[in-house]
Amino acid sequence: MHPKAILIAAVLLAAAPVAFAQTLAPRDVPARSLPVPTDVSPQLQQLIAAPLRTGWNTPPTTPEGWKQYAESIRAAAVPNVHAMQERLQVKVEPGVIDGVRIYTVTPKTIPAANRGRLLLQIHGGCYVLNPAEAALPEAMLIAAIGGFKVIAVDYRMPPEAYFPAALDDSMTVYKAALKKTEAKRIGFIGTSAGGALVLEMALKAKQDHLPMPGAIASGTPMSDATKTGDSFQTNAMVDNVLVSPDGFCDAAAAFYANGHDMHDPLISPVYGDMHGFPPTILTTGTRDLLLSNTVRVHRKLRNLGIDASLQVYEGQSHAYFGRDDRIPEVREAYTEIAGFLASHLKK
Amino acid sequence: MHPKAILIAAVLLAAAPVAFAQTLAPRDVPARSLPVPTDVSPQLQQLIAAPLRTGWNTPPTTPEGWKQYAESIRAAAVPNVHAMQERLQVKVEPGVIDGVRIYTVTPKTIPAANRGRLLLQIHGGCYVLNPAEAALPEAMLIAAIGGFKVIAVDYRMPPEAYFPAALDDSMTVYKAALKKTEAKRIGFIGTSAGGALVLEMALKAKQDHLPMPGAIASGTPMSDATKTGDSFQTNAMVDNVLVSPDGFCDAAAAFYANGHDMHDPLISPVYGDMHGFPPTILTTGTRDLLLSNTVRVHRKLRNLGIDASLQVYEGQSHAYFGRDDRIPEVREAYTEIAGFLASHLKK
Repeated sequence: MHPKAILIAAVLLAAAPVAFAQTLAPRDVPARSLPVPTDVSPQLQQLIAAPLRTGWNTPPTTPEGWKQYAESIRAAAVPNVHAMQERLQVKVEPGVIDGVRIYTVTPKTIPAANRGRLLLQIHGGCYVLNPAEAALPEAMLIAAIGGFKVIAVDYRMPPEAYFPAALDDSMTVYKAALKKTEAKRIGFIGTSAGGALVLEMALKAKQDHLPMPGAIASGTPMSDATKTGDSFQTNAMVDNVLVSPDGFCDAAAAFYANGHDMHDPLISPVYGDMHGFPPTILTTGTRDLLLSNTVRVHRKLRNLGIDASLQVYEGQSHAYFGRDDRIPEVREAYTEIAGFLASHLKK
Repeated sequence: MHPKAILIAAVLLAAAPVAFAQTLAPRDVPARSLPVPTDVSPQLQQLIAAPLRTGWNTPPTTPEGWKQYAESIRAAAVPNVHAMQERLQVKVEPGVIDGVRIYTVTPKTIPAANRGRLLLQIHGGCYVLNPAEAALPEAMLIAAIGGFKVIAVDYRMPPEAYFPAALDDSMTVYKAALKKTEAKRIGFIGTSAGGALVLEMALKAKQDHLPMPGAIASGTPMSDATKTGDSFQTNAMVDNVLVSPDGFCDAAAAFYANGHDMHDPLISPVYGDMHGFPPTILTTGTRDLLLSNTVRVHRKLRNLGIDASLQVYEGQSHAYFGRDDRIPEVREAYTEIAGFLASHLKK
């Protein structure tokens, strides 16, 4: 009936590992108009329907420009952060630990099982954005929904300091935490650049002969800063947050790297040796530009026999799941993450 | 610096649940050329580089046409199935259980822990394709890689019989198996239509007051036959196997449904009540047209507190992970599935 179809099917089925094609043809995909999916909440539909982030392909080009950009985003975020804090009823106290700026975020009540536990939250923002209060949404979400005490690390960023300053500051806070809290009672949580940093922290802890934390929650990690990963292509112009591997976020990561090799596992942790990692939960969305960056870390951990859990949310672009506590899927995601941490951290 | 960007960011962050847009704009994505990803095995790269399935949008239109199509695909598959059987060294014995055609697939050795266990494998093929030996690759893979005894169900298909014949035949074999083997020692495994059927079987078992199996492995399930699910759009023309929600597979499912309501959970199991489901592992790929169908089932199970594990493979279109035992990622996927079944089925 369809002899050509049968031939292709047979080739796909059997011959692939034997008769290698000489050239690997790309997939040419025509222009398309993707409707907003109907199988997510109305709140999430609003995010999906938003246009591509304005200015995604015109990032700042000078240190001063980046500083102003970060500051303007911070200033715009502050009222929302305060409103979220109000809704979630968490206490936020700024502080300094061994020279590193932090916030201690505490929920109204901490369940008995969590009283000896501590989370370190490492914020996202392409290693350049979300200083100060802008760092707090994830810390507040996991504190309120999970009932955890959280230390949010407001690490130094360019142009104040370059690679590996973000990692160094996060490790300083971890080392300080270890003096008071057993490693197995400490969890790392972060999203995007923060999702990469929590993996980098575990790699660095191994290098420095520090104990592993009890669990890690890595949200859509920038695990590969070399632009490798299929969803950089398949979800380009589909993800309305990061938009493209040639957008503002990669420009920001390059600004942070400051000439450092992007293949270094301390900036592209997917290339690191993850033997001995603790239980890890990874979160992403089907429209996420970093879908591949996330699933590759998950498979790497699973192939090492590590208890790694992958959660993929329908229709979500990069890091939607941490956006706003009034979105049902955001509460769902942090309930899932909180449950994972609660079941793996030592009491 | 980027006042419009800041405005959009602020709107995305805070206003979504408050100020609802009146119309939900689709995302217009330009034509693109997606290179073959470099972070998968050379064998998998060959599959990814293959063109769209020929004839994907010209399915048969008559019962006789479908019969011929299914037969031609079966005939083309047989030599590959035999070669795979040879490589995997599994024994394949045809038989009949209470009137239903089956194959018993046995590995060379069965580990002691698996001797009291049994898997029922329900093949894929859009409810119309892959009769007889064409049904066997998944059964052989899990038998050989997992060390399980497997009964592969060669259920009736249209035009021989229509909905719910596939489900009825699968349930007949399950009921027969229950006479000899405790439910908690039985696992269900299936991919695509088979991935849906194993979920439908669990729903039907509840309806019929039969015990739940001990575990389920559902590969990229056709869990929603109503064409709902974001990846039907985002991965259209990207997935080179199913290609489009308006392709041969949906035509085949409609042929099977024979006018039955596609929202019935026994043909679109994502709409079913999954309370009480056993531990379930779900498998898909980042380019899979059914990525959303898979993650939606996963989230549904997780929100019910069920031990559900999601595995998403880089760059894979629909059901690549069951394609050929010589592809490293195929062995990886069945090793993962086998480990899940081994850790959840009662010994």
